[in-house]
Amino acid sequence: MPSPNIEGQQRGYVIPIGGAEEKIDNPEILTRFVELAGGADAVICVIPTASQLDDTGERYEKLFQELGAGKTISLPIRERSDAQNNEYVEQLLTCTAVFITGGNQLRLSTILGGTPIAKTIRQINAKGVHVAGTSAGAAIVSQHMITGGSTGIVPTEDGVNLAPGMGLINTVVVDQHFNQRNRLSRLLSAVSYNPFLVGIGLDEDTAAFIDENNEFTVVGSGAITIVDPADIEYSSMADARRGDALTLLNLKVHILASGSRYNISTRQAFA
Amino acid sequence: MPSPNIEGQQRGYVIPIGGAEEKIDNPEILTRFVELAGGADAVICVIPTASQLDDTGERYEKLFQELGAGKTISLPIRERSDAQNNEYVEQLLTCTAVFITGGNQLRLSTILGGTPIAKTIRQINAKGVHVAGTSAGAAIVSQHMITGGSTGIVPTEDGVNLAPGMGLINTVVVDQHFNQRNRLSRLLSAVSYNPFLVGIGLDEDTAAFIDENNEFTVVGSGAITIVDPADIEYSSMADARRGDALTLLNLKVHILASGSRYNISTRQAFA
Repeated sequence: MPSPNIEGQQRGYVIPIGGAEEKIDNPEILTRFVELAGGADAVICVIPTASQLDDTGERYEKLFQELGAGKTISLPIRERSDAQNNEYVEQLLTCTAVFITGGNQLRLSTILGGTPIAKTIRQINAKGVHVAGTSAGAAIVSQHMITGGSTGIVPTEDGVNLAPGMGLINTVVVDQHFNQRNRLSRLLSAVSYNPFLVGIGLDEDTAAFIDENNEFTVVGSGAITIVDPADIEYSSMADARRGDALTLLNLKVHILASGSRYNISTRQAFA
Repeated sequence: MPSPNIEGQQRGYVIPIGGAEEKIDNPEILTRFVELAGGADAVICVIPTASQLDDTGERYEKLFQELGAGKTISLPIRERSDAQNNEYVEQLLTCTAVFITGGNQLRLSTILGGTPIAKTIRQINAKGVHVAGTSAGAAIVSQHMITGGSTGIVPTEDGVNLAPGMGLINTVVVDQHFNQRNRLSRLLSAVSYNPFLVGIGLDEDTAAFIDENNEFTVVGSGAITIVDPADIEYSSMADARRGDALTLLNLKVHILASGSRYNISTRQAFA
């Protein structure tokens, strides 16, 4: 596991997690995150903003301590004024890794968007600090964030709602609880809006550990579904009316279980 | 619309329908089926065996009459002894098209499998009689028939149950109510068992009109999802244990709305 290198120019890992990651029995994802953060030398900042529950931050603090993290700080950012708080920015600047909890991704984007906290997370990630997010926290890491959409398989013209995310990675759109909530329809709708995007559908208890070269390894008990629209030969998206079935020819799909790898830049998958 | 040619050697159309086809408002699929069967010259045999309801046969008789079919006969085949009945075989031999209703596909395979009725349907289809089936009736047309499986997106080692179907078409596996019941998982499981299969996922009110060259046009209000596993580069299916997430690299997927075409033999899609 590479040790964190805050002073270097390599981007830290970006780690979207599909939600409901195992916390007790075999917490493979969280264990690997804590190791990556530096184990006993780790300073982990938890951002519980997506959650409406008061104890979400504390819960992860306790979890990370149990998993051997040196120090964990939860930043109680509940509204936009909190996200301007210089004390929290200073605390972020001391950390080796950031963990963004689940909840509602529109809380993350509306509360953090454009604030010093969001800017600092982008800056420290670029300098080597790892950023993980689960569920809503996974959605926010990409430039284009899914906030809602239709369930099912086939895409439609109005099948997904997008909002700007935090932009730690740019050429992907991430979805969570993917198999559990039947979200292929909205991921296909998103990537067919603009096929420069790669769709990453994360099952629950499944994470993509994306390194500085935009290559990731799958960790966890589920699968990651990759939807690569680069070779689409025909799309009726631009001509479709609301509710119409769409035609999309030649999508590439990969299903990736634990240990498989994918390179987002080259769009290559490896077993 | 080509007229039926019972004496010729061209196979009749095979027409799997994804269930819940529109019957009143704009019955596009049933209208096209009646035209194909010969319109005023049509003799349509309805096979209501999949259904447990007494009036399913009569209902379709009435529908086809309203749509201008010359003659419609429902064959009340409820058990295996009925499927040995020579009178029903004789009636089948007079028809220009067969319509297999929905219900339970295991009723179709257990009641019709290996009987003179099943053999006659195969023989007359080979000689030019068109065979349509909706829902369970769609499942039965292929050689390998899905009888059950898991819902969701990602495939698993035990994600689908297959049984022998009627085998009017051989290199495909058909699924119905596809988008409505989230059945990609079981279709992916089926095609990854043996990638010689093409997976055809039919939405409700959507049909594939498959001609004698194994090419079909999509008719109806939904989409047909094609899963083509021919280019799979890696599959962990053979090594997976029950419940494991699978890795499948390089699946090709097409989403086909009304008017799109697909050639099952060449595996080419056309907008």
